[in-house]
Amino acid sequence: MNVLKGACVIGQSGGPTSVINASAYGVIKTALDSEVITKVYGARFGIQGVLKDQLMDMEMEDPEELALLKTTPSSALGSCRYQLKDYTEDDTDYKRILEIFKKYDIRYFFYNGGNDSMDTCNKISKYMLHVGYECRIMGIPKTIDNDLFGTDHCPGYGSAAKFIATSVAEISRDAQVYDMGSVVILEIMGRNAGWLAASAALASVAGEGPDLVYLPETDFDMEKFLADVKRVEQEKGTVIVAVSEGIHDKDGRYISEYGSSLAQQKDAFGHAQMGGLASTLEQIVKEKLGVKCRGIEFSLLQRCAGHIASATDIEESFLAGKAAVEQAIAGVTDKMVGFSRPEEGAYECQLQLLNLSAVANAEKTVPLEWINEEHNNVNQKFIDYALPLIQGVPEIPTVESLPRYPKLKRVFAE
Amino acid sequence: MNVLKGACVIGQSGGPTSVINASAYGVIKTALDSEVITKVYGARFGIQGVLKDQLMDMEMEDPEELALLKTTPSSALGSCRYQLKDYTEDDTDYKRILEIFKKYDIRYFFYNGGNDSMDTCNKISKYMLHVGYECRIMGIPKTIDNDLFGTDHCPGYGSAAKFIATSVAEISRDAQVYDMGSVVILEIMGRNAGWLAASAALASVAGEGPDLVYLPETDFDMEKFLADVKRVEQEKGTVIVAVSEGIHDKDGRYISEYGSSLAQQKDAFGHAQMGGLASTLEQIVKEKLGVKCRGIEFSLLQRCAGHIASATDIEESFLAGKAAVEQAIAGVTDKMVGFSRPEEGAYECQLQLLNLSAVANAEKTVPLEWINEEHNNVNQKFIDYALPLIQGVPEIPTVESLPRYPKLKRVFAE
Repeated sequence: MNVLKGACVIGQSGGPTSVINASAYGVIKTALDSEVITKVYGARFGIQGVLKDQLMDMEMEDPEELALLKTTPSSALGSCRYQLKDYTEDDTDYKRILEIFKKYDIRYFFYNGGNDSMDTCNKISKYMLHVGYECRIMGIPKTIDNDLFGTDHCPGYGSAAKFIATSVAEISRDAQVYDMGSVVILEIMGRNAGWLAASAALASVAGEGPDLVYLPETDFDMEKFLADVKRVEQEKGTVIVAVSEGIHDKDGRYISEYGSSLAQQKDAFGHAQMGGLASTLEQIVKEKLGVKCRGIEFSLLQRCAGHIASATDIEESFLAGKAAVEQAIAGVTDKMVGFSRPEEGAYECQLQLLNLSAVANAEKTVPLEWINEEHNNVNQKFIDYALPLIQGVPEIPTVESLPRYPKLKRVFAE
Repeated sequence: MNVLKGACVIGQSGGPTSVINASAYGVIKTALDSEVITKVYGARFGIQGVLKDQLMDMEMEDPEELALLKTTPSSALGSCRYQLKDYTEDDTDYKRILEIFKKYDIRYFFYNGGNDSMDTCNKISKYMLHVGYECRIMGIPKTIDNDLFGTDHCPGYGSAAKFIATSVAEISRDAQVYDMGSVVILEIMGRNAGWLAASAALASVAGEGPDLVYLPETDFDMEKFLADVKRVEQEKGTVIVAVSEGIHDKDGRYISEYGSSLAQQKDAFGHAQMGGLASTLEQIVKEKLGVKCRGIEFSLLQRCAGHIASATDIEESFLAGKAAVEQAIAGVTDKMVGFSRPEEGAYECQLQLLNLSAVANAEKTVPLEWINEEHNNVNQKFIDYALPLIQGVPEIPTVESLPRYPKLKRVFAE
């Protein structure tokens, strides 16, 4: 085996999740324990920390504090939404990254993120191959959106799904307390993929499911929606509706834009910023059906509610980070660690390696055959897929019954 | 002792909480176990269930299902917001209640709710005394708002406070992930009393506190608020702000009305319906300070997130229900069960009895000496008061890692 001695960098990128630090801890702990990796650096604010020469020396941290990362939500090293240009067009950033890699003898680069972050990781990997700098580069998946291509599921999704399903069960109970019709509309994250909104349907396993679920995988028809809501309201009195923020009509127009006068803003990757869908639908339901209606946006809570994380998700996230280091030490590069499961029988999380170039910028949406014929809910195939991912209650260290998070020193390397 | 044999009714009223069913279970279990109380009825949708002759026979329920009430959020019997007129003006409802009480030989009436519900309970109690119908009537406090007069604190508050403090800690982590200034504004329930918004400050015990907290106990000054936010943003980069929905300016105008074009609606008790404050402040901060800002409304989650309930709150809620029954059997009537604590030393929850007429419609707000001089946070006195109330992690029965709620048969008495 070609033993490659040198330092490593771990970077976190994109939107945070409840378990992204579990993956970081998987990398950091495995790298610190390794005899091949000479130094372990954390990039402050993702790739920006490399570009700005802000690398934190992980050996300076108290191991007990580091261990708390496993149950700490959000990106403890700091994150970014920074898009690299193609190096064939502009290699300024790449030259700088190479300079920093050489300065610290970095031979291992681990990047933890979603679609856009895998694009960054892939570009750096290809550039290093191009210039012939020996460095093993591994992507580690992370996204509550669950939309990374090639992997069965993504670290972060199970915990977000568990928060959503639990909250739907609780809100469903809350909505039934008065002797009057009422509609609750839950706006859930997900631009192009409906995995998160679909997870609301898991509450049905506890007998408290949403009545209607609308995903961006199909076109949203306002008249059909209003008819659906009216029918359920007449049958049951209470209607719980889960919608993806990215639902759109057959012309591709976002429903959130229907009633919103807010200027549409775009993020660094050119994605439209969603929001205001719940209140838009609330207004339309009140106006057209004359029934009590409340729109609720889960907002940041769905991606940071670490107190209700899935133990399965935490363990798998940790393993993804650990496996990335172990595989890189064994000689693997230019890959993302992914998950698969047995085609039949009980759920089991198996590791697989995916080409970074295949993953970068590709999106995986909810299969149409997991959505019901009326396009207003998911079916048992989705439940069977998602239910194993939310299992298990983790032990969360606390102080005065509140979550205990690590105090990091964040000592920058010289 | 004057032993009063007869049936009892338990009713739930007003907005639900995470633990209102723990009190109901305290009543139901103690009453079922009693040899004096002959039948135990649950009123369907509060006092409306009495008026409509919809009383559920609790003996028909599976005891194991009933036991799940202790960890089930929301009002399992159903609730209402129904205001009784003074019987001196219109005694129609009272005559009907008396008719039902006589029909089922009801000699014990337990009503579980907040300010308005204690008003209902007090009026029924006074009417029964007036007409000389022997019936022991006890109020059991319930409100996430924590604003009931005379009691140290209210069942439901500790769990809501724990959800808020935990979520603030998590959101605070989330807000810090990018290398850019950002402001998060958290809109928290509370019309006239700031107890819930103040509970955000408990997160500071975990080192993740909000930077600014504004309560309705003091006048809100927009210029001062913007200066506060700007100062913290420049010092720290990230600003976490907690606001009560009921904050108002010195002229008494709600801040939520500043930017809102929504028609102001009033509920059955004539209270203005709040809402839209977070987005109003978000727009003002973006406009005036030019900084990234996100408004988040905790909405229903703060009153129904049973999965993060305080074990202390659950136990105390159960005890309040149990004590109401025990005291009534012992001859007490026309009282609300309240809590007190030792003036010095460790926290301990002690029971006390309060006159219903003193509690009805009276409100308790956060003492001004618990708010800092700048009126933009609470001080240690508040923390010392509230911290004991959120302690302890309850055992929550689950199914597939989701909360397991009781399946009630809801068999109406003939």
